[in-house]
Amino acid sequence: MVRPLVDGGKPGPAAPGVEVGVGLLGFGAVGSQVYRLLEEGAERIARRTGWRPTVRRIAVLDPARPRAHPLPVHLLAPDAAAVVGDPQVEVVVEVMGGLEPARTLVLEALRRGKAVVTANKRLLATHGAEVSSAAAAAQAPLAFEGAVGGAIPIVKPLRETLAADRVRVVEGILNGTTNFVLTRMTRDGWALADALAEAQRRGFAEADASEDVGGHDAAAKLAILASLAFDAAVTDADVFREGIQEVAPRDIAYARELGYVVKLLAVGRDLGEAVDVRVHPALIPQTHPLATVEEERNAILVVGERAGPLVFSGPGAGGAATAAVVVGDILDVAGRRRRGSGEAAPARRPAGVPARRPVWPVEDLVIPYYFGLQVTDRPGVFARVAAVFGEEEVSIASIVQKSRGAVADVVLLTHEAREAAVRRVVARLRAMDVVKSVDSVIRVVE
Amino acid sequence: MVRPLVDGGKPGPAAPGVEVGVGLLGFGAVGSQVYRLLEEGAERIARRTGWRPTVRRIAVLDPARPRAHPLPVHLLAPDAAAVVGDPQVEVVVEVMGGLEPARTLVLEALRRGKAVVTANKRLLATHGAEVSSAAAAAQAPLAFEGAVGGAIPIVKPLRETLAADRVRVVEGILNGTTNFVLTRMTRDGWALADALAEAQRRGFAEADASEDVGGHDAAAKLAILASLAFDAAVTDADVFREGIQEVAPRDIAYARELGYVVKLLAVGRDLGEAVDVRVHPALIPQTHPLATVEEERNAILVVGERAGPLVFSGPGAGGAATAAVVVGDILDVAGRRRRGSGEAAPARRPAGVPARRPVWPVEDLVIPYYFGLQVTDRPGVFARVAAVFGEEEVSIASIVQKSRGAVADVVLLTHEAREAAVRRVVARLRAMDVVKSVDSVIRVVE
Repeated sequence: MVRPLVDGGKPGPAAPGVEVGVGLLGFGAVGSQVYRLLEEGAERIARRTGWRPTVRRIAVLDPARPRAHPLPVHLLAPDAAAVVGDPQVEVVVEVMGGLEPARTLVLEALRRGKAVVTANKRLLATHGAEVSSAAAAAQAPLAFEGAVGGAIPIVKPLRETLAADRVRVVEGILNGTTNFVLTRMTRDGWALADALAEAQRRGFAEADASEDVGGHDAAAKLAILASLAFDAAVTDADVFREGIQEVAPRDIAYARELGYVVKLLAVGRDLGEAVDVRVHPALIPQTHPLATVEEERNAILVVGERAGPLVFSGPGAGGAATAAVVVGDILDVAGRRRRGSGEAAPARRPAGVPARRPVWPVEDLVIPYYFGLQVTDRPGVFARVAAVFGEEEVSIASIVQKSRGAVADVVLLTHEAREAAVRRVVARLRAMDVVKSVDSVIRVVE
Repeated sequence: MVRPLVDGGKPGPAAPGVEVGVGLLGFGAVGSQVYRLLEEGAERIARRTGWRPTVRRIAVLDPARPRAHPLPVHLLAPDAAAVVGDPQVEVVVEVMGGLEPARTLVLEALRRGKAVVTANKRLLATHGAEVSSAAAAAQAPLAFEGAVGGAIPIVKPLRETLAADRVRVVEGILNGTTNFVLTRMTRDGWALADALAEAQRRGFAEADASEDVGGHDAAAKLAILASLAFDAAVTDADVFREGIQEVAPRDIAYARELGYVVKLLAVGRDLGEAVDVRVHPALIPQTHPLATVEEERNAILVVGERAGPLVFSGPGAGGAATAAVVVGDILDVAGRRRRGSGEAAPARRPAGVPARRPVWPVEDLVIPYYFGLQVTDRPGVFARVAAVFGEEEVSIASIVQKSRGAVADVVLLTHEAREAAVRRVVARLRAMDVVKSVDSVIRVVE
């Protein structure tokens, strides 16, 4: 299995390269592109890195499914266990997605001491600690650059380059579909449903876009990023989550007047004892480093105590893009595995994985808030509305009021206030006869 | 020397951690911060990574020099060779800067099989191939994330994460001082000298700013990035270089009218047989991903064939920021070295380093150009000017003409044209009596 292919005086571009046996679990958008890149790029990769990763076996759930790229049937294994168990397979590449059987297969591969590369965000966001523990216990290399942000290099920077720094804040636009939708709503005044249909037409939103729109996709990615950044075991269940369903074009327009843009923002903060992790629509200042991230692009802001604010941006998705960094990971783990574990990376904690930390309750957030209300347009109403804010100790920073006949739009920005108090304000406003509706309450991230 | 410090039931925060002996060459802005971070962050780093890098010896050129952080004199070696030769030193951290004695010391450390971390851009831009060869020959780990862009993670993404992709383009704003100067000139209409004085007052421009202003600093960084991105041996001498000395506030104002901003841009392109590497002032569209990079920030655009356009940005400099990633590198090479070279990373090419490739001559560039002229303001002059462009087959894309009494400013944007032809146009214009001056010719990067 381990045979250096030295260029035996042959003419042409054959480069020396040490073969590495790869097993592929999944042959969809990413898996097929990994296969293609390893085939087409073999000479170049060998010349550049000295490695020649070669797909030895492939498993798919449904071999009969029609595919954009034809399955190399000669490599097809009867099932995924046969790939993981194949002694010719040193690196298991899990690009099938979903929790099971991905979890069982990845754990089994690690238990056998194989290197694992995965781009499965759900698996890592849900079972990240278990998978990391298994890798540490078996001293088996594990890499997952493709799990967050497509080809944007963010996992290794957090895991390795910034390992000595203290990262305090991670903020991200982590879902391309919702960013596309909000961009269209902002720039072209489209309705959410129309923008979503267009994203689906362009092929980057799923037919069932509820994972995107509801913030589940971004929450899973945030759990992975926060775990790395804060050296804590954060799962997607820890992440407070609110989707973009309620964001109205009117909020976007008023936000712009106030100097803000509306984004579906993933926010992670290391508060010391606890971590604050949440995904929700947010007003961010037009000068915020993520404010200019438009269309389906993704971007991540990392604030290190010493490194300062760093921004990483890119397409964030796509089979070919993700495949490129999956192959980067294959090369990386191949090196780690072959170098052996002699006097290897020392054990970190007993379990080899970061500890869990309490999650800061969203009710205890102290941040500014945006309010969009409709009130009866007559004298004295605003004083009554303002009194409620005052009584709940929510201080108003700025107000826009626009009459629309019998009712008036009132848009408010508060100073920093506790979310629990903001919720009391909302409940009291809703009970007032002069308040027609509290249409929106959106968190502000400065 | 290799003794795992297991937490022997002691109370408090002591974490297990395998000690790694570090030798520090240089104790300036970066070196002193590396020392501090390793001291102050030791427990956290050990808990997180399992390693406990410890500075064993330090060498400085002038121990008597006053320093912001006091030298730990008990670690002071008689000279740098004593640090490199110390058997307790496994990782040599070269943060002294300059070509010699840095080169000799780094080569000697590698020859002895020690791991080397350097943040020395000049060394790598000039002797990168020699240093890489020495590392490959000795199978000694070499890391240099801190050499380009301060704490912006860009070296490892290019070297590892994107190793399987084909990177076609690298564009960067790689010098903080000049970006600050151009930002002030653009936003506040300052003169270059005033903006430069302000950068010096703020402490991020050297007293002698000629390395910054002349583009030398950016050229060295580009040589390193292009070498990694294109897998080619590029030195700073290969980089065509033009500084910002001739950029006038007027050009910046006209560029804005035309929808562009002026930046000192580092451009690297892989043209297949040859590489195009240059640093010069450039008009870039206001929608270009680097157009909004302001003040002293740095940013790098990487376009991978599969990964698509990725942007990395951050402060780009600073002792503490650079120190953070230098320590990240120490942790990385410690792991690589300890895992041993058993069946290690295979040899790449015979020499272990990428080959040199021809450099595309700047005369053969085919890109758009910006012209700023002053001409006599009378009928028929513009036709004569335009005729020269036509005769040299430089096609004009747009024109702004503004009368200022007896003379008129003429600002032109060309379509793509060969630089050699553009130079002929300039020579002919300068010989015309109706042309008062050709004030500026600036390359356009779309």
